[in-house]
Amino acid sequence: MNKAEIISIGSELTTGQNLDTNAQWLSRQLAEIGIAVGWHTTIADDLDDNVATFRIATQRARLVLVTGGLGPTLDDLTREALARAAGVELVFHPELLEQIRDIFAKRGRTMTERNRVQAYCPAGAEPIPNHWGTAPGIWMKIGESIVAAMPGVPSEMYAMFADAVKPRLLHLGMSGGVLVQRKINCFGAGESAIEDKVPDLTRRGHVPEVGITASDATISLRIFARAASRAEADAIAAPIEKTIRERLGNLVFGVDDEELQDVVAKLLAEKRKTLATAESVTAGLVAHRLGQVAGATYWFRGGIVANVNDVMTALLSVPTELIEKHGAVSPEVAQAMAVACRTRFQSDLAVSTTGLAGPTGGTPGKPVGQVYVGLAWDGGADAIGHSWLGTRVEIQSRTAKMALNRVRLHLLEK
Amino acid sequence: MNKAEIISIGSELTTGQNLDTNAQWLSRQLAEIGIAVGWHTTIADDLDDNVATFRIATQRARLVLVTGGLGPTLDDLTREALARAAGVELVFHPELLEQIRDIFAKRGRTMTERNRVQAYCPAGAEPIPNHWGTAPGIWMKIGESIVAAMPGVPSEMYAMFADAVKPRLLHLGMSGGVLVQRKINCFGAGESAIEDKVPDLTRRGHVPEVGITASDATISLRIFARAASRAEADAIAAPIEKTIRERLGNLVFGVDDEELQDVVAKLLAEKRKTLATAESVTAGLVAHRLGQVAGATYWFRGGIVANVNDVMTALLSVPTELIEKHGAVSPEVAQAMAVACRTRFQSDLAVSTTGLAGPTGGTPGKPVGQVYVGLAWDGGADAIGHSWLGTRVEIQSRTAKMALNRVRLHLLEK
Repeated sequence: MNKAEIISIGSELTTGQNLDTNAQWLSRQLAEIGIAVGWHTTIADDLDDNVATFRIATQRARLVLVTGGLGPTLDDLTREALARAAGVELVFHPELLEQIRDIFAKRGRTMTERNRVQAYCPAGAEPIPNHWGTAPGIWMKIGESIVAAMPGVPSEMYAMFADAVKPRLLHLGMSGGVLVQRKINCFGAGESAIEDKVPDLTRRGHVPEVGITASDATISLRIFARAASRAEADAIAAPIEKTIRERLGNLVFGVDDEELQDVVAKLLAEKRKTLATAESVTAGLVAHRLGQVAGATYWFRGGIVANVNDVMTALLSVPTELIEKHGAVSPEVAQAMAVACRTRFQSDLAVSTTGLAGPTGGTPGKPVGQVYVGLAWDGGADAIGHSWLGTRVEIQSRTAKMALNRVRLHLLEK
Repeated sequence: MNKAEIISIGSELTTGQNLDTNAQWLSRQLAEIGIAVGWHTTIADDLDDNVATFRIATQRARLVLVTGGLGPTLDDLTREALARAAGVELVFHPELLEQIRDIFAKRGRTMTERNRVQAYCPAGAEPIPNHWGTAPGIWMKIGESIVAAMPGVPSEMYAMFADAVKPRLLHLGMSGGVLVQRKINCFGAGESAIEDKVPDLTRRGHVPEVGITASDATISLRIFARAASRAEADAIAAPIEKTIRERLGNLVFGVDDEELQDVVAKLLAEKRKTLATAESVTAGLVAHRLGQVAGATYWFRGGIVANVNDVMTALLSVPTELIEKHGAVSPEVAQAMAVACRTRFQSDLAVSTTGLAGPTGGTPGKPVGQVYVGLAWDGGADAIGHSWLGTRVEIQSRTAKMALNRVRLHLLEK
């Protein structure tokens, strides 16, 4: 009974028509005030399911936040379902009807008779005013649980949570201090290889909790530190982060929302170096990611996308003989692309990609997913290979990350 | 007991760190085969909560789809929780271990000892092979419910659902009628301008229901047609789609998951034309989107990303005087980029982008968001301008769409 449950109501969610983003938003808000969320539950506009779900939630969660089902239409069932779950009647609140009339008047419209249902609230519950729309919220206790029902429209829900619900939770002392989440992002090894370096931290029951997730070949370790204050939580997370960094070394490229391109951008700016790209298999994705970073024009000179061999020859001066001898998908061509690109763009560094993204075109010697990344710098050049599994889009995305990571590691070494 | 429940597992979801999109995707898939979804439930990586949730679900839903918690790490608890909920032991499957070893071998790596846990499955359950990753799925019966557990990684889950789970559901006769969703995708006008052309179709209560959504300047109209069979549902949707196409004309570029690059690819292949790109403000995004389409090498010759004026001059032969006279962000330079690009790449068409993506660098005459798209073809060239509101990433993305749309309209005209 020490966790919260978030319930989202609406058939447009269970049919998959709309994506529920309210539960995520509320989870983050609760995390910030140290209330752990155990469950998100989404249900259709069905009275029996609503009542049953509220009963389950109020038996297992100390706080239940509900969004949706407070509108004026026939499929808005939250008021009635909450009353049934609590075993009470719905009570008419004349002052709510006035508020709803006012909202219509402010918009220069007349309230429809239908909106009258929005002035009902379960007996013993307290209505929460809604300054942004017609649906008042509901604050009540069912059994040992606090229940707060808010509109499903995100902007109205955000405002009601911030203005009314969050202050009440803090006032009731429900806040369990602060939860700090620190994400350590890694690239260059698989999820299990990374976990093998920190098994003591990720084991169940470790305090603070450390989780591991993989997203498109980026592996993230997440530290969840709970404490009474932000400073204390930070102090709990810091030594764990230090241990992770010591064990993982250069596999760690950034924290929280930092992407590889952000780190490459920072390093290039710091070291006053410029970069150019020569892409075949990634077809512009490396350039695009670099270009997403504000100020890219200062350190990213530009790039070439060479999809066909004659473009490699004409625009990147990769000799036809080299392509004929080794094939366009080879470390030799990757390296030659990088060297030529560096000259063309007069940049300090150039990175290149070549490979097979599929879905067809693979051979036993060069399967789909085989890629090479070349790098050229003042005084040298090389190329590294890798074989990815995945769809065309995944192979391109992971190879682009591999290219950005190659640049990062070079800048760290020099 | 006639509805389905979708369970998403992972603390990264309940903490709000990640957004759950799997439940929405699966809901849509089930809707298409007429299986109504009653509940989405999201839980943290907590064994007791997992077991309790599986028990509740298998008592109320005839079908339970689970995503996540099948990886090799300690917080992957789905295998164990399903076994406990069913009251059975976990059983080791040597053939699964071989499959997992094979996956590693194909990637030229050695399986870590940790991955061994992925070869366990609840007694009586059937493992579902995973061709895209190391986590096998699980197919089993608990009480009266069918349970299918799939990986949380979306691409692996999509493939496993399509290849193994959906066919089994159809085979079991679980499908009940059909909901056909037809999405008509438009580009080139705002949401309200498009809705103003079809107000009779989008009003509430219209059968079939027609919804309108906007995503990154792509406006989509969705037709929801319900019937006993796919053919009948299609017959309901078809005349509505015809009306929409008549009213919107060339604003409609595709249907369902079709993106602008898919349509451009189709038109280029049909008309046996080739394309090249010269990008400044979009920094490789147009090339990247074209490169995502399988077979792009046949019609996409390549591109240049010119982030700085001297690259425009050196690699695209845009005269310095032209840049000095009009500025790099001008229709004149956009057009010159396209013309030079077409020559450089010896392509039938070339498209270019220039503009200001911000966040800084705007002036009253050329604000952030001002962009130009140039096009060159055999016998001509032109440029069009637009002013976008939005973040750097949004401006880049919308300008890339504008460029692709310009190519599409040209290919339709000729």
